[in-house]
Amino acid sequence: MSTTLINTIEIIKAGTTKINDVDFDNLHFGEVFTDHLFECDFKNGEWQKPIIKPYAPFLLDPSAKVFHYGQAIFEGMKAYKDDNNDIWLFRPDENYLRFNNSAIRMAMPEVPEDVFMEGLNQLLKLDSEWIKKGKGNSMYIRPFMIATGAGVIANPSEEYKFMIILSPAKSYYSGEVKVLIAEHFSRAANGGIGAAKAAGNYAAQFYPTTLANKAGFQQIIWTDDATHTKLEEAGTMNVFFRINDTLYTAPTSERILDGITRKSLIDMAKRENIEVEVRPVLVSELVEAAKNGNLKEIFGAGTAAVVNPIIGFSYKEEYFELPKIENSIASQLKEKLTNIQHKLAEDTFGWTVKV
Amino acid sequence: MSTTLINTIEIIKAGTTKINDVDFDNLHFGEVFTDHLFECDFKNGEWQKPIIKPYAPFLLDPSAKVFHYGQAIFEGMKAYKDDNNDIWLFRPDENYLRFNNSAIRMAMPEVPEDVFMEGLNQLLKLDSEWIKKGKGNSMYIRPFMIATGAGVIANPSEEYKFMIILSPAKSYYSGEVKVLIAEHFSRAANGGIGAAKAAGNYAAQFYPTTLANKAGFQQIIWTDDATHTKLEEAGTMNVFFRINDTLYTAPTSERILDGITRKSLIDMAKRENIEVEVRPVLVSELVEAAKNGNLKEIFGAGTAAVVNPIIGFSYKEEYFELPKIENSIASQLKEKLTNIQHKLAEDTFGWTVKV
Repeated sequence: MSTTLINTIEIIKAGTTKINDVDFDNLHFGEVFTDHLFECDFKNGEWQKPIIKPYAPFLLDPSAKVFHYGQAIFEGMKAYKDDNNDIWLFRPDENYLRFNNSAIRMAMPEVPEDVFMEGLNQLLKLDSEWIKKGKGNSMYIRPFMIATGAGVIANPSEEYKFMIILSPAKSYYSGEVKVLIAEHFSRAANGGIGAAKAAGNYAAQFYPTTLANKAGFQQIIWTDDATHTKLEEAGTMNVFFRINDTLYTAPTSERILDGITRKSLIDMAKRENIEVEVRPVLVSELVEAAKNGNLKEIFGAGTAAVVNPIIGFSYKEEYFELPKIENSIASQLKEKLTNIQHKLAEDTFGWTVKV
Repeated sequence: MSTTLINTIEIIKAGTTKINDVDFDNLHFGEVFTDHLFECDFKNGEWQKPIIKPYAPFLLDPSAKVFHYGQAIFEGMKAYKDDNNDIWLFRPDENYLRFNNSAIRMAMPEVPEDVFMEGLNQLLKLDSEWIKKGKGNSMYIRPFMIATGAGVIANPSEEYKFMIILSPAKSYYSGEVKVLIAEHFSRAANGGIGAAKAAGNYAAQFYPTTLANKAGFQQIIWTDDATHTKLEEAGTMNVFFRINDTLYTAPTSERILDGITRKSLIDMAKRENIEVEVRPVLVSELVEAAKNGNLKEIFGAGTAAVVNPIIGFSYKEEYFELPKIENSIASQLKEKLTNIQHKLAEDTFGWTVKV
């Protein structure tokens, strides 16, 4: 899906930059945004003239559908700067495809490919000073779309706003992560929107996660809502289990996000001759493996943290601590993947794309 | 939960009124709003000074959490004007309680009772000219709360905006409604947020409903997501089935909204000595009753439409037309309920509250 829209892109530069106010060594994830944003509105059945302009608040009607009926989707991506000052994206085509799949499920218009890609590329070039070199530095990219049409009748909006905003990021260390396996709460229904990166999926997790936090756990491993016997996602990440020397992860489904880090890790592990089984993983298998010492690792996989090791889990009031492992598969895969992303290793998969 | 906040309410009146531009005989649901709105912000861990001010768009940061993580809840209520120009609400305490239950589930702060009630009452008084007398006229009330805190980390916002907006409404006639019984898509998960009036629940329904519309059906009757064998809600309404002379409706659960029209209809029906069974209703029972002629009525129940009769349903490619019934239970209950709401009949339940 492409348009000629992007040829008409307008760029309004910020009069001043905020970059000198930013402490790049002490960034908190997702709090600081660059000088500009990309915006393209949808109305009268078509995408309007796209624009890059100074990052600033914008006006919405109190009856805007995003407030009342939750039509809102997003993507999470990262850009990296190599030693030659070239900027690289990681599998942006996958984010673009998933974004439009989310749009379809939420009854929102698909964004044309050139609007998404050219908007992103031009925005990154304009704010390239904000992308710092060196491993551990990246630019977190947040494309999102919201329903802006006014009116409180419960049907799809006729107007939307697509935006891309940029937030410089340091490598994400979340501390030691203990997780609770969900026995009651769920993140997704069969026939629901769990596979979409829809805003409402995230708010639904906050209350159960807050309860888990109070009980001393940083995240929840979500199970299938019908039986709570199958392991599905960890917090807002996909999840992998290592039993002996095999990695297990659930197949994607309409309850599980088709994570780009997840599929990249699977491909990398296979190339390293690590056994990977993509199949439903039962809570009972995990507990049994933990009890007999075969459970070696659990880790989450997602754009923000890349790979997030989990040190223990609780199920039915029983806590299982994982062994401390030198040279874990999690750390090996994270090292290899971040080296590819930062252009420190050869990208034999063809995943990196120059801006 | 009460505060002293409401004593400090500030009122900024609109310089002009839009009322003369409105064609009150040809209102479309939810499109026109009155001159003022009520607003109260939450920040620094507490509710701030409430204000009534002219209805107008407001500014939000592009990273506001409502756009990215969907923390957004609402209520639907109505006010009515009687022949003495008194304004009446219908069971507002129930809306208030449900609003805060939704807030808890979405990890949002509860709104103090006096902020909700006094804000609503003062707003209705200020815009009372907009509430028209006569059966069929009402003021649709939309209290809602959104997460306004900036930042794209996936955790609960620290800032929120609670607003009430008002939209004059005519009685809602949706035409002849045929429904499709859901065999694949779902609106709610076990352990999910189906019982909350959360924005994301509604967007999730738009795509399946659009598909149903294209197939010639106006709404979907949602079934449980695990087995698709139990009938749960109709579109955005609760649903009743009349088999012979008994009314059936599903019990409320974490998948089903605790509808105020629903519970009022149950109480009214019981007082009329109509048999009501609140229990899970199976799709197979419905199909069997339709086949042997015992299925007399299906109707939705909700604030906007009050009672919405359904003329037929489709399940597994088979369409079942309902009999045309004189003096249906749906029409009887709707007549009695709207008479109570409009103060045309004695309110022996004590449901109406004067503003």
